[in-house]
Amino acid sequence: MHLQNDLLIRAARGENTERTPVWIMRQAGRILKEYREVRQSAGSFIDLVKNPELVTEVTLQPVDILGVDAAIIFSDILVIPEAMGLPYEMVESKGPVFPKTIQTYEDVKALRIATENELDYVFQAIRLVKKELNGRVPLIGFAGAPWTLFCYMIEGKGSKDFSKARKMLIQDSGLSKDLLDIITDSTIFYLRAQIDAGANLVQIFDSWAGVLSGEQYETLILPYVQRICREVKGAPITVFAKGNPGVRAALGKTQCDVVGLDWTMSITESRILVGPDKTLQGNMDPAMLYGSFDEIKKATKAMLKEFGPRRHIANLGHGVYPDTDPDKVKCFIDAVKEFSS
Amino acid sequence: MHLQNDLLIRAARGENTERTPVWIMRQAGRILKEYREVRQSAGSFIDLVKNPELVTEVTLQPVDILGVDAAIIFSDILVIPEAMGLPYEMVESKGPVFPKTIQTYEDVKALRIATENELDYVFQAIRLVKKELNGRVPLIGFAGAPWTLFCYMIEGKGSKDFSKARKMLIQDSGLSKDLLDIITDSTIFYLRAQIDAGANLVQIFDSWAGVLSGEQYETLILPYVQRICREVKGAPITVFAKGNPGVRAALGKTQCDVVGLDWTMSITESRILVGPDKTLQGNMDPAMLYGSFDEIKKATKAMLKEFGPRRHIANLGHGVYPDTDPDKVKCFIDAVKEFSS
Repeated sequence: MHLQNDLLIRAARGENTERTPVWIMRQAGRILKEYREVRQSAGSFIDLVKNPELVTEVTLQPVDILGVDAAIIFSDILVIPEAMGLPYEMVESKGPVFPKTIQTYEDVKALRIATENELDYVFQAIRLVKKELNGRVPLIGFAGAPWTLFCYMIEGKGSKDFSKARKMLIQDSGLSKDLLDIITDSTIFYLRAQIDAGANLVQIFDSWAGVLSGEQYETLILPYVQRICREVKGAPITVFAKGNPGVRAALGKTQCDVVGLDWTMSITESRILVGPDKTLQGNMDPAMLYGSFDEIKKATKAMLKEFGPRRHIANLGHGVYPDTDPDKVKCFIDAVKEFSS
Repeated sequence: MHLQNDLLIRAARGENTERTPVWIMRQAGRILKEYREVRQSAGSFIDLVKNPELVTEVTLQPVDILGVDAAIIFSDILVIPEAMGLPYEMVESKGPVFPKTIQTYEDVKALRIATENELDYVFQAIRLVKKELNGRVPLIGFAGAPWTLFCYMIEGKGSKDFSKARKMLIQDSGLSKDLLDIITDSTIFYLRAQIDAGANLVQIFDSWAGVLSGEQYETLILPYVQRICREVKGAPITVFAKGNPGVRAALGKTQCDVVGLDWTMSITESRILVGPDKTLQGNMDPAMLYGSFDEIKKATKAMLKEFGPRRHIANLGHGVYPDTDPDKVKCFIDAVKEFSS
């Protein structure tokens, strides 16, 4: 289907655009009262994720309400471990918890590569969203990066430094490689199927990249990310290695199209490290949206100036905080549109 | 008192040393069964911190058992908020919790600058440790950095990104400045008094520096750190801004003597950014101590080679993990001594 607004895709491919495209990580979520209403009617968080009709509703909300240049399918990165045979629970005000974790070779052997069967609800939702969007804006698909999923599958929950996962990486490189391989295979299937279902761009979220040094990440983890970038075709790919400034130069050499920056990364330095051939995405401090409207406009203008008009997709440097005023989010989005035109 | 082993102090001052000095963040703590025995007999964690005799015992343990080149006084960075009028509790397997937090101007006004009265137990412990050490190795004193204490005092507990504290920093710069000022005043008193009591070097721990961009840290936070470095005399000062690689160049321009590096920071890059006039401390990945003895020796050798023989204090890039085998810690310490001689 022809996209009426394809700014995101053209920016991702490095083509000229009339203005900078903008979307917001976690734009479909708790900042919107319209989301909270759907969430309440859905039952649990996981019930919502598995309901294609409700997923479609919350995925479209920010397009209508906030005016972003892309929708991102509402889901969770942990649907992949679940599809591999390791289910998770979402515990209110605590986050995800895995009742069973990966500790031994037998645990890894008991996993399967994710297939259509376990994830059909995601692809159904993507097709529904595409139909409802009717070409207004592109749809972003996504997956967790192999390292981040590895962290959760070993540790079983969030952690400050994922020392158990890092212990496994150092103590049992055989098990680690096998686990990272089967996660990577699952992710390649998953992203390909999202693109087949209609996703126009896919993003790989490496939320816990920052617990590794740049060198560790480059040596032990980046090869899996590279394999995904190489083997997933048909849509631009964004890699967001949050918290790991040391890997930016290496990311510039992968086959991804867009490199995500968090708010702690200097824009100018990132451009030098990543090189001229990738689009950069980001990276306003999400806490900046706690500022006044004037402060937000000023910060957005400064950000746009530093990125320049080409090869940039405007976003925050991390997911928007749940208690952010939606009008402040809209202020940021409108400021991008105004100041980059 | 004359120090028989003053490698740490000479390295901090940039003098030549026969070999690289080594100590370990969290060397006095749960890795040692001798610590766990004292901890159990003490009652709560806070009871232990406030008992000068027991503090002396656990402070000396790693000197005797592990052979480190420095003792560090066993305490907690949160003794300062407590001394200012904001008490904390230590909740098992959860970490510190403040029953009351700072939210308004009135809350800040109710705080006092910490004095001798509230912190005498620390200075007593330092004098006792110095007596027991009898000049064998230097004693390190420490404090939390203004930003890290600010984070805890606003947020009330640990957090992934301290968004409440960052919200305060953006929404109420007046309150933020007042709070950072009174924390800084308290810290200057505290570090001076530690030096008067006998501390030979003091370290400022900015554990949550990494939730700010390098620019935010440099503009909003570094001036307080600089004031401490300027106003505390009589012993070398180490600043450890964990997780904030963007501030290394600016730290090189402060009046500190030593810049701490975490394990994600490239050694070569850090030396370039910090410049030649500071000593660097760190930075082996603490998870590396989960490796085999051979792997630890190899990694230590590589680390020492990259730092070079001058202006380096060997350490991990963060506190040692509680489940680390003490023999592996000793292997790291012995490897530093052997390979740097």
